[in-house]
Amino acid sequence: MLEELTSTIEFQMSLLLFVALGGYLLATRIHQSAVIGEILVGLLVGPSVLGLITYTDFVQSLAGLGAIILLFVIGFEFELRDITNWKYFVIALVGVIVPWIGGYFTSVFFGMDFISAIFIGTALTATSIAITANVLREMGILHQPFAKAIIGAAVIDDILSLIVLSICTDLAATGSIAPVAVGLTIVKAFGFVIIAAGVGVKLIPWLITKMDGTKIARKFPEFVFIFAMMIAFFYAMMAEAVGISAIVGAFLAGVCVNRVSLKHSLDIKTGSEYLYIIFASIFFVSLGIIADLRYITPEMILFIVILTLVAIVTKVVGCGLPAKLMGMGWKDSAAIGFGMMPRGEVAMIVGLIALAHFQEMAAAALDPLEAANLVTLGNEVFIAIVVVSLMTTIILPMIYTVILSKEKKQKPDVCEQNPET
Amino acid sequence: MLEELTSTIEFQMSLLLFVALGGYLLATRIHQSAVIGEILVGLLVGPSVLGLITYTDFVQSLAGLGAIILLFVIGFEFELRDITNWKYFVIALVGVIVPWIGGYFTSVFFGMDFISAIFIGTALTATSIAITANVLREMGILHQPFAKAIIGAAVIDDILSLIVLSICTDLAATGSIAPVAVGLTIVKAFGFVIIAAGVGVKLIPWLITKMDGTKIARKFPEFVFIFAMMIAFFYAMMAEAVGISAIVGAFLAGVCVNRVSLKHSLDIKTGSEYLYIIFASIFFVSLGIIADLRYITPEMILFIVILTLVAIVTKVVGCGLPAKLMGMGWKDSAAIGFGMMPRGEVAMIVGLIALAHFQEMAAAALDPLEAANLVTLGNEVFIAIVVVSLMTTIILPMIYTVILSKEKKQKPDVCEQNPET
Repeated sequence: MLEELTSTIEFQMSLLLFVALGGYLLATRIHQSAVIGEILVGLLVGPSVLGLITYTDFVQSLAGLGAIILLFVIGFEFELRDITNWKYFVIALVGVIVPWIGGYFTSVFFGMDFISAIFIGTALTATSIAITANVLREMGILHQPFAKAIIGAAVIDDILSLIVLSICTDLAATGSIAPVAVGLTIVKAFGFVIIAAGVGVKLIPWLITKMDGTKIARKFPEFVFIFAMMIAFFYAMMAEAVGISAIVGAFLAGVCVNRVSLKHSLDIKTGSEYLYIIFASIFFVSLGIIADLRYITPEMILFIVILTLVAIVTKVVGCGLPAKLMGMGWKDSAAIGFGMMPRGEVAMIVGLIALAHFQEMAAAALDPLEAANLVTLGNEVFIAIVVVSLMTTIILPMIYTVILSKEKKQKPDVCEQNPET
Repeated sequence: MLEELTSTIEFQMSLLLFVALGGYLLATRIHQSAVIGEILVGLLVGPSVLGLITYTDFVQSLAGLGAIILLFVIGFEFELRDITNWKYFVIALVGVIVPWIGGYFTSVFFGMDFISAIFIGTALTATSIAITANVLREMGILHQPFAKAIIGAAVIDDILSLIVLSICTDLAATGSIAPVAVGLTIVKAFGFVIIAAGVGVKLIPWLITKMDGTKIARKFPEFVFIFAMMIAFFYAMMAEAVGISAIVGAFLAGVCVNRVSLKHSLDIKTGSEYLYIIFASIFFVSLGIIADLRYITPEMILFIVILTLVAIVTKVVGCGLPAKLMGMGWKDSAAIGFGMMPRGEVAMIVGLIALAHFQEMAAAALDPLEAANLVTLGNEVFIAIVVVSLMTTIILPMIYTVILSKEKKQKPDVCEQNPET
């Protein structure tokens, strides 16, 4: 009876939203962003501590919707030229290579096998656009030049990371790299971005404006809003189809919808932001739920701590240094370096692929002891990636509070961006 | 590869929203409500015709969210006194008894067994609040006295029907009725409604107003909105826990939130309506998808046609006549009778329970031929219920266009409510 009830969507939705509210309360109490509060309370109610809620298919679906709506809304704040800057490309590229090397050699140093090491290296490559953008947004600094650079570079490094991932998955599966497949992945990924953004930025506003003038939009003011959400999910689907992260597609859709103004229809941005409030909250809570900290053995703690430090330093150096070398100020370069530090969606995806890879190998192993070892190894790689992602995410707002409050003293005009700190 | 893509949530969301847009287009073209357009296009793309989209767990979850958000939003338009009218109770009670008898004897007349007949009788008892309220809302007549009566009575008949369902499920399973269990169901159902509405109507606005004044709501204007949605799902869950439909709980939550006014926070009603636009659309599309018309055999067509007529006549008489006898006008009584006609969520639930019952019996049958017959019988009962529900739903707006346009000629003040017809 009780189990039947807890499996209903009503129970899970009310519990997730209740947890999100708890996250806001905690965030206010500890003077952190709501994201941090939500992840921490997610950890508390998830399998790690209380075990009140598990990562069901339903939670996963809602979190997926949340990530897409989140990036769609973030996209509203951007113009196409914000992400087509060669400087951001350089920041992204160096910021993918350095963390990969750092993650790989740290793993090897701690005695991990070749395959685990390449998965961990790959997991460190991609900045979480969702988390970073939300932190920047909540702090009211999304329009700062360094914030634009972070988002632009984060979008590009997501694409680069997913290319690295497809190479590494091949390498893990077959032991060799297929140059044709890699080339195809690169062409598809960049081809999609160029077409989706280049064509969409003209076509989508034109279509929406047309629709807004039709009889149907005057009869049903919600018509255009449904169309806009459909585009968001369609772009997300197309991105997934070409092998890059769905959220990159949703972000591009948001960029395309950015400049539309409507006469008869309900406002797309307002509506999307209400969806974002509910589903992005669930997304962040779910990040806490997915991480089952009970898998962490005492031996792993040092590895995770060192790997977290490597994850931070490699992004700060790999992104901050190119930014400085290309003429940005120390403060902005530091803000970019730290801003690129949070890992999230892509790292989780890499972790899940690694887990599946080891489970497959275990299923094929003849010796039961070897199979058990492989399963344990997979779980260790997964939990290491998840915990490092969470740590980098939780640390960012703390570091920003320090960096930006220093900046505040020097440049008084900056303080208006974040009235709360 | 293609199959992998079509199973992603991005693909399903974009397709569902695309179908919803098609529904709006069709609705405009055939001068019907958007609900009808969405159900019809759902039938077209579902397994019945094109087979482009199936009723996956994900679609089911989204539709479930849609039904809850729909009723929550409908609840905003109501005061508690709108549903605590003894006249509505009488309309609901007679409107449950007459259709049950009609459905039972029609089934027996067509040679159906006892158990099929009681399930079909039960399926005809409950008016679909979701569909009816949405049609009334779309036509802009939700504030008419007869519309208030329809919704009030529909909420009550949902509760009555779910009590009948629990009796009939016992009867089908054990062949007898347990008076204690029935009494308990009745006490729990009415107890929930009285407590949830009576306490909630004071407590929830008080809580929300308190929250709106706190520091947290001033820092995070979305906080109160998340709380309100949490209450909607919590009430839905509690309703389900006491054995009545989750959407009755969501409706009561909407009634309780109705009179709140906020200073610092984002508007609850606006936000809920944006969620409603997306998820109620998906709910209505899903009704078309769930009905696989290919199960209908030629022999069943006459039965379904007659059962649809019985479903209409028994509600028109069973609800319209009491309304007339209690002093309402002929027009209002007719509007109430026809307005109570659409069946939906509860009928679908009854259909699914019937299907599961016959599948269980088939699994326990020793003779394989008998087992096959039981499975066919279950599918026939299910599809008959689904098709009758759809027919009653599709017919309502057509009848209303006739009734209300006549009314329009007599009372010119009514025409402003529906500028489109």
